[in-house]
Amino acid sequence: MKTVVVVGVGLIGGSFALALRESGFRGTIIGVSSPDAVRVALEKGIIDEALPLAEAAAIADLIYLARPIEGILAALDELDSFVKPGTLITDAGSTKAAICARAAEKIRLGRFVGGHPMAGKEARGAQEADGSLFRGRPYVLTSRCAELEETISNFGARLVFISAEEHDVLVALTSHLPQLISTALAASIATQPEAARVAGPAAMDLTRLALSPYEIWRDIFATNATNIDAALGVFIEKIEGLRAELRARGMEREFENAAAAARGLRGK
Amino acid sequence: MKTVVVVGVGLIGGSFALALRESGFRGTIIGVSSPDAVRVALEKGIIDEALPLAEAAAIADLIYLARPIEGILAALDELDSFVKPGTLITDAGSTKAAICARAAEKIRLGRFVGGHPMAGKEARGAQEADGSLFRGRPYVLTSRCAELEETISNFGARLVFISAEEHDVLVALTSHLPQLISTALAASIATQPEAARVAGPAAMDLTRLALSPYEIWRDIFATNATNIDAALGVFIEKIEGLRAELRARGMEREFENAAAAARGLRGK
Repeated sequence: MKTVVVVGVGLIGGSFALALRESGFRGTIIGVSSPDAVRVALEKGIIDEALPLAEAAAIADLIYLARPIEGILAALDELDSFVKPGTLITDAGSTKAAICARAAEKIRLGRFVGGHPMAGKEARGAQEADGSLFRGRPYVLTSRCAELEETISNFGARLVFISAEEHDVLVALTSHLPQLISTALAASIATQPEAARVAGPAAMDLTRLALSPYEIWRDIFATNATNIDAALGVFIEKIEGLRAELRARGMEREFENAAAAARGLRGK
Repeated sequence: MKTVVVVGVGLIGGSFALALRESGFRGTIIGVSSPDAVRVALEKGIIDEALPLAEAAAIADLIYLARPIEGILAALDELDSFVKPGTLITDAGSTKAAICARAAEKIRLGRFVGGHPMAGKEARGAQEADGSLFRGRPYVLTSRCAELEETISNFGARLVFISAEEHDVLVALTSHLPQLISTALAASIATQPEAARVAGPAAMDLTRLALSPYEIWRDIFATNATNIDAALGVFIEKIEGLRAELRARGMEREFENAAAAARGLRGK
C-alpha cells in the first residue's frame, strides 16, 4: 500500500490519515476535500497533497470515503470509472445498508468494504483530527479484508464484523435513538424557562447530544428511517411501561434490569 | 453557630460537613448516622463525634438532614420535641413539597428552610465526601434565611430561590425525567444482545444514570409522581413528534430549537 486517498478530510478522515501515519505508514496520503479543509489538512501535515477525485482515485491503492453519507453515495456513483483494478475502497459512513447496496451496484473494478468507526467528539473539522481517535473504540467492518483489518487493528481499534443490515439495526438503538432522546429531552426542559436554574449533571449529560447540528443527521435519518422508527417504538414502549409503574412495585425490577444492561454495555 | 448536626453522613451530608470546615467553621460537627457511616466519618475527620438524634438535636444550632426522603420525613416527625427554640433546620432531600409540608406541620420551636443541592457523583457514602462538591452548582432554598445563605455561598454554590412546588415541577424535568429516560434506553438497547458490540460514546453517556440503584429513587417517585408523570407526558409527546418527522423537513427546526435549549442550559 503506497498511496492512500482520503475523500473528505474532516474529523474522521483527518484522524484516519493521522492514525495511519502514527502506525508507521510511509507512503503518500492524498486529500480530496473542500479548499478550506485541504488548507487546514496541509498546514497540519495531515495530507501530503490534494487532488480532484478522478486524479487521486487513478493512483490510489486505498480510498477512504469520509464524507457525509450523501457524499459517499455520490463518490461511489463515479469512483469505479477512475480506479485501477483491485483498488481497495472503504468508507466511514454512519449507516451501512444504503452505502453497501450502492457499492455492490457500482463498484466493479475496485473492492469495497463498508466501515464505521464508533468514535467522534463534539468539535468537528480537520483541525480537530486526532490520530488516537479510534483507540479502544469499536470499528465495524461489513466484510473481511486482511489488509484493512491489519491497518485498523494498528490504530488500537476493536474490530467488529457484522452485516450492513445488522449494523443499521444496532446503531439505530445505540446511536440514532440516543440522539433523538437528547433532542426531545432538551425540548421538554425548554417548556419550563426556569428549569435552567436547577439543571444539574444529569440534565447536562443527557442534553449534550442535542447540540449536534442537523446537517450530520439528515442523511442518517434518510437512510435508516425504518430501523430508527422501530427503535423509537421499543423505547416509547419501555418508557410508557416505567410511567405505568411510577407508583407501583414493578419499577424496582425495571431498574435492576436496566442497570444490568448498562453494566453489560460497559463489559462488566 | 457553634454546633452543627448532620443527620445522615453519606456523600451529601459528609460533603456538607467538609465544605463547612473548609470554609472556616470552627465549631463542633456532630454526626447522626449508621454505625458504619459514623466509623468512616470519624476516621476521615468529617465529624467530631457521633450521637443519637435526640441528644444531638438538643445541643444543635443548625441541623442538616441528609438522609433519603423517607428518613428526612421521619426525622421531622420527632425533631421538634428535642430542639432548642430557634434552631435552624434544613435538608438536602431530592423533592421538596412533601418535606416542606411535613416541616410546616411538625416544626414549631425550630425554623425550617428546605434545601436541595444540585450536586452528586456516581459513587456514594461518607468515603466519597468532598468539600468542593457544591462548588459552581445550583443550591435551591425554598425560603430566605441569611445565616444559611451565607454558609452555602461560602461553599461556592449558586443560590436559587424557588418554592417547594416549583422546585418539584422543575426537577421532574431536569433530574427525574433524565433518570427514567436513561433506564428506558438501557432496557431498549438490551433488546438486541449484539448492541453492546457497537455501543459508542452516545450510548455510554446516556445509559450512565441507568446504573443508579432503585433505593435512592423509590422515595423520589413516591413524593413527586404527579410532576414526573406530567414531565413524561411532555417528553413522550416531543419524541413522538420527532418520530413523525423522521422522513420530513420539520426535523431541522426541531433540532435547531433543541440545540438552542441545550445551549441555554449551559448559559450560552
